[in-house]
Amino acid sequence: MKKFINAPADVLAESLRGVQAAHPELRVDTANRVVLRGEPTREGKVALVSGGGSGHEPMHGGFVGTGMLDAACAGEVFTSPTPDQILAATRAADSGAGVLHIVKNYTGDVLNFEMAAELASGEGIRVESVVVADDVAVQDSTWTAGRRGVGTTVVLEKIVGAAAEEGADLDAVLALAQRVRGNGRSMGVALTSCTVPAAGKPTFDLPDDQMEVGVGIHGEPGRERRTLASAHEIARMMVEPILADADATGSAIVLLSGLGATPLIELYLLFGEIAPLLAEAGVDVRRSLVGDYITSLDMAGASLTVVRADDEMIRLWDAPVVTPGLRWGA
Amino acid sequence: MKKFINAPADVLAESLRGVQAAHPELRVDTANRVVLRGEPTREGKVALVSGGGSGHEPMHGGFVGTGMLDAACAGEVFTSPTPDQILAATRAADSGAGVLHIVKNYTGDVLNFEMAAELASGEGIRVESVVVADDVAVQDSTWTAGRRGVGTTVVLEKIVGAAAEEGADLDAVLALAQRVRGNGRSMGVALTSCTVPAAGKPTFDLPDDQMEVGVGIHGEPGRERRTLASAHEIARMMVEPILADADATGSAIVLLSGLGATPLIELYLLFGEIAPLLAEAGVDVRRSLVGDYITSLDMAGASLTVVRADDEMIRLWDAPVVTPGLRWGA
Repeated sequence: MKKFINAPADVLAESLRGVQAAHPELRVDTANRVVLRGEPTREGKVALVSGGGSGHEPMHGGFVGTGMLDAACAGEVFTSPTPDQILAATRAADSGAGVLHIVKNYTGDVLNFEMAAELASGEGIRVESVVVADDVAVQDSTWTAGRRGVGTTVVLEKIVGAAAEEGADLDAVLALAQRVRGNGRSMGVALTSCTVPAAGKPTFDLPDDQMEVGVGIHGEPGRERRTLASAHEIARMMVEPILADADATGSAIVLLSGLGATPLIELYLLFGEIAPLLAEAGVDVRRSLVGDYITSLDMAGASLTVVRADDEMIRLWDAPVVTPGLRWGA
Repeated sequence: MKKFINAPADVLAESLRGVQAAHPELRVDTANRVVLRGEPTREGKVALVSGGGSGHEPMHGGFVGTGMLDAACAGEVFTSPTPDQILAATRAADSGAGVLHIVKNYTGDVLNFEMAAELASGEGIRVESVVVADDVAVQDSTWTAGRRGVGTTVVLEKIVGAAAEEGADLDAVLALAQRVRGNGRSMGVALTSCTVPAAGKPTFDLPDDQMEVGVGIHGEPGRERRTLASAHEIARMMVEPILADADATGSAIVLLSGLGATPLIELYLLFGEIAPLLAEAGVDVRRSLVGDYITSLDMAGASLTVVRADDEMIRLWDAPVVTPGLRWGA
C-alpha cells in the first residue's frame, strides 16, 4: 500500500486537520468530525447537512460553504457517520428554520441519519430528509437495498444549497431536493480497485485486461466485468444505461467525476466521447463539470451523472458558491 | 496500461475535444492545439501565453481565462510544443500590447519558445519571456540544464495574469513575473511511476516499498530513492530542502499539488503535516491550494511549492479568476 498516511487508524482525523489548515474559512469540529462553515447559519436560513463515509473527497466536507452545505459529517473511510455525529452537525447547523439531511442510499447512512433526525426532532429541531439513489448499475448492492446514491448528490447539494441561501423555507427546499433527486441518473466504471488504508490491500482483484462496469464507489460489484475497452466504447457503456433508465432528453447538468486516480487528460478525453452521445440522444448539456467530485479513494475510473434540469435549476446551479470543491460567482 | 483512451497517438487531440465540449467559454484551436479565451484579448491588455508538454493538466490549458492566461499551447504528452504552435498562440493572443511567454525550464520548451519569440518579433509583436526553474531537487536533470520548472508556474500565471488584467504594461508584467519566479521553490515526491500512453508501460520501476524523493514531473530521477516513509516524514523531506534553499520566512502562498493519481484525502493529510513545519520555520501561509494543479499523468505523488508573497502579490492572487482549473471572485 503506497499512500501519504501515517497510521491507518488516524487517516480521517489527520486528513481533517489538513482540511482545517488549508481552509481557515471553515471550522472543523475535530471531536465530532464535522466540517462547518466559519459563520453560524444565518437566522431564517434552512440548514443543509450531509455526510457519509470518508474516501469520496471532496464530497462532502469540500462542499461546505456559502451556497451549498452548512455542515458535513465524516465517517471513517467507507463507514457511515454515527447518529451522534449527525446529531451534533444538525444541532450546530440549525438556526431555527429547520434542517435538510442529504443522504446517500447506503443502509448504514440511511439508518444513522434517520436516528439522528429522530433525536433532533426530540430536541425541537425540524428535520426533513432526501435519500439519493441514482446509480442505475444495479438494483441492490453490497450495502444497499435499492439503488446506490452517487453523483446526483453533488448536483443536488449545489442546487438546493442555492435555494436555501436565497431563503427558501424547509418545505420548498425539500420539494426541490426531491425534484433533483428524481431527475438524476449515474453510472460508473472502474479500471482498478481502490485500497482502504485499514485493509492495506486492494478491495477487489481486477486483472490487467479487465474493467468493472457499473462499479460502486466503495468497489461494490457492478453489472459485469468486461475486457478493457476503448474510451469510445466505455462512453457508450456509461451513457446507454442512463438513457435506457429514464427519459433524459432536454436540458441537463452533466458531471463526469474521476474516482480518485484518474488524471484529467483522460477524463477530458472520455468526456469528448460522452458529449456527442448525449447530444445524439437529445440531451442538451447546459452545464458540465469534469474533474474529481465524488471519488473512491485511489480507484482509477470515472462516474457519469446526468441530471435533467429546468431553467430554475440551471439558475440555481449558476448561483454563487464558495466551497473548497466548487467555487464560482463570488 | 489501463487508461480511458482510444489510440495512444490520438490522446492529445481527443482530450482537447473534451476540453472544448466541457468549456464552451473557451476556444480550442484544434489544428494548432492551442487553448484560447472565447473573446479576443482586450485592446491594450498584455497577453500571457504559456504551454508545454501535455500530461500536466489542468496546467496549462486549464488556466486559460479571465485573470490568468490568454492562450496555452499543448505539446504531445511530455513533449514540447513546436515553435509553430507557440507562434500561432502568440499571434492569436496579441492585441498590440505585447505578449509574455511563461516557460518552464525544459530544454525543448526553452528553445521552442525562444524561436517562436524571434519569429513573432519579426512580425512586429513585442514578446518578453520568463523561464520558471523552481525545483530545488536537482541542479540539472534529464531534459534540463539548470533546475526544472514546476509549481511556481501556476502561482506566477495567477498573479501575473491578474496584473495584466488590471492593465499593467509589458515591462511591469515582466518585472512582476521575474519577482514571482525568484520567490518560488518546489519539491516533489513520487510513490509510483506514471505511464506515457505511447510507451504503454511505466516510465520507471519503483518497488512496492520505495519512493522517489525529488522526482520530476515527467518521472525524471530525483535526489534519492528511499524506503516508503510516513506522511509525517515525507512532509519533512519536502519542506526541508525548500527552506534550506532560500529564506522562506514571512508571507507565502503555498501549493500542494497531487501528481495525478493521489486522492484528496491523502493530500489533505499531507498538508496537515506540512503546515505546522512551515509555521515552525516562520513561514506565514497566507494562501494555500491543495489539489491537482500540476500533474504527471497517473503518477501517485505530490509536489510542494512555496512562494514568498508580499501584500501586492497576495492582492493579485485574490483578484478574480475564471478558468477551468482556478476560479474565484467572479
